[in-house]
Amino acid sequence: MKDTVYSGRMQKAKMEMAKAGVDAFLLGPSSNLFYLTGYAAQGDERLFLLVLPLEGEPFMLANLLYKEQVASLPADGFAYWKDGENPFALLKTEVEKRNIPVKRIALEPQIPALFSLPLGEIFSGTEFTLGSPITDALRQIKEPDELERIRRAGRESDGALSAVIGKGSYWIGKTETEFREELFAELRRRGIESPGAVVAVGANAAVPHHGCTNTVIERGKCLLVDFWGRLEGYYTDCTRTFHAGKPDSEFEKIHAIVLQAHLAAEAAARPGNTLGDVDKAARSVIEKYGYGDYFTHRTGHGIGIDVHEGASVNKGAAAPIAPGMAFSIEPGIYVPGRFGVRIENVVITGEDGPQPLHSYPRELAVIG
Amino acid sequence: MKDTVYSGRMQKAKMEMAKAGVDAFLLGPSSNLFYLTGYAAQGDERLFLLVLPLEGEPFMLANLLYKEQVASLPADGFAYWKDGENPFALLKTEVEKRNIPVKRIALEPQIPALFSLPLGEIFSGTEFTLGSPITDALRQIKEPDELERIRRAGRESDGALSAVIGKGSYWIGKTETEFREELFAELRRRGIESPGAVVAVGANAAVPHHGCTNTVIERGKCLLVDFWGRLEGYYTDCTRTFHAGKPDSEFEKIHAIVLQAHLAAEAAARPGNTLGDVDKAARSVIEKYGYGDYFTHRTGHGIGIDVHEGASVNKGAAAPIAPGMAFSIEPGIYVPGRFGVRIENVVITGEDGPQPLHSYPRELAVIG
Repeated sequence: MKDTVYSGRMQKAKMEMAKAGVDAFLLGPSSNLFYLTGYAAQGDERLFLLVLPLEGEPFMLANLLYKEQVASLPADGFAYWKDGENPFALLKTEVEKRNIPVKRIALEPQIPALFSLPLGEIFSGTEFTLGSPITDALRQIKEPDELERIRRAGRESDGALSAVIGKGSYWIGKTETEFREELFAELRRRGIESPGAVVAVGANAAVPHHGCTNTVIERGKCLLVDFWGRLEGYYTDCTRTFHAGKPDSEFEKIHAIVLQAHLAAEAAARPGNTLGDVDKAARSVIEKYGYGDYFTHRTGHGIGIDVHEGASVNKGAAAPIAPGMAFSIEPGIYVPGRFGVRIENVVITGEDGPQPLHSYPRELAVIG
Repeated sequence: MKDTVYSGRMQKAKMEMAKAGVDAFLLGPSSNLFYLTGYAAQGDERLFLLVLPLEGEPFMLANLLYKEQVASLPADGFAYWKDGENPFALLKTEVEKRNIPVKRIALEPQIPALFSLPLGEIFSGTEFTLGSPITDALRQIKEPDELERIRRAGRESDGALSAVIGKGSYWIGKTETEFREELFAELRRRGIESPGAVVAVGANAAVPHHGCTNTVIERGKCLLVDFWGRLEGYYTDCTRTFHAGKPDSEFEKIHAIVLQAHLAAEAAARPGNTLGDVDKAARSVIEKYGYGDYFTHRTGHGIGIDVHEGASVNKGAAAPIAPGMAFSIEPGIYVPGRFGVRIENVVITGEDGPQPLHSYPRELAVIG
């Protein structure tokens, strides 16, 4: 196999496999496969696997239909099966042919039961374990090229939000869905793929994972916009909470508390601290003001090839912060039936401290 | 639980569970969950399950974050877990509390290893099996409302293709990607969500699962357009192969053979036959003309909530055709390095024979 960024990552994966005591790592279409091979495969009902043995060279098992896409990927061998044939039997044959031990096998976490149950049958004496610790260990520390892509994604998303929010009072009377569609179009124009968003007006913003409805943006209500998408394979994720028309003093107060919590967490996002310290920094500000029960979720999540990846920024999370990590900081306060406020940036942890990804202002802004 | 279309489907699922000898069926975010509950959940790293026991009432296990979305779903109980808690332990407690036997459990095929491995640990004496036979048996025969949605999706996709192809010579000099983007915009305008497409010029069309590149549409080359998307939760899928400028006689001949194979398969798509008969009808036409080796895939696939679902229209497929089934018919001939032709309709099998979904002409059309 040629010496590339991918062969380097596979070598590192093998070191983690040795630590985890696994003989082989099976990966299907997933962000981990993309990380290890550059192949952005679409999973379907046809078994596709990268088999990465601890000893020996990686090979791929694919349906013959995909030969043209697969043949140039970084692997040292390919085994093709045809529609109507049993790919699991072929896998067993190939594994035996290569003398790969199968005492303990790691599975890519996204491999569906459709494949994991037959794998369990064909390797009936094998102990299976999740491969997440192997890839998480690699992926949590981003390479410089990965950080650059994340930064670009952040810049483009800032630009898109500016362009859309810049329309000001145009939005009064429009629906959450209309807002989302214009935001998506603007994101796509800037090269951001697979955009997703929560656009939530008023009481909808009190539901942290509200999607998007035909609720109308009206003066006197908040507008929470949480949006994400991928540029050159890497995600950005950002939330701002606006207010349509003049907010009342309670909303202003809660927005200020969330911003204070956000800034405290950002300041804590530095080598020497743990992810739990970041969560604690945000949570203790919100608790101090008596809104602890209204902050119902973790402070953030790792980000990269997946919009949520790796360790959580959660209460007590022991993972130490190292340079080159990227995660979201997104505290919120949700008052059921009334409104919600969340402020989210992705932050990259530099040697010298946090580098927030988004330059879009976090202060409360009024639209319309 | 209220008597709804969903409680009716769950009752039918229980009948299939009894046949399969399973005590309970665990479903995560998937098209099967959508079918049984109407909940179009986005899967993420937080365990969400519908637990459907053979005896007793269904309940759901969800992260507290999703309470607002989940609480109104068709289930008789809800168990919520918080970030930081162990949802698998909660599941075990709930299952024991309800005296649900766990000798043999069916898993939704899309449940990822991330959840299926811990489930295997917590129910260590349990035999796990795939739940596909349970839901496939139900979903393969569509209800009238489902058929109506599939028909609407087909009509709107025809309209989109007409509008885009109608631009004629506008397309000469444009890229595959530009074509795809205009097609997607037109599909979205007509309410079709999650559009996908293969747009392939010339030799790219010889790769059945080619995606989309910046290859330019030029006179003298074919243009294969395979596109799909979802309307009100149900998919359409259609392929037409055009030619930019006048085709040569070989291309015309191969297009005519594929059309003949397509029509033969369509005629065979009727109750009394098997899905294998449909495949054979298409394949034997192509083989008769000596192109058997160039038809490298199955003739079609079931369609509905998923773009590929249920039984394949494959060589020897024994599944009998019954009224109310919907599947694709999409024979093709691929000449590597030169061109490819595929013609695809979705067909609904009526009591009296096949009802093709797409009225867009299948005959060879020249653009530009």
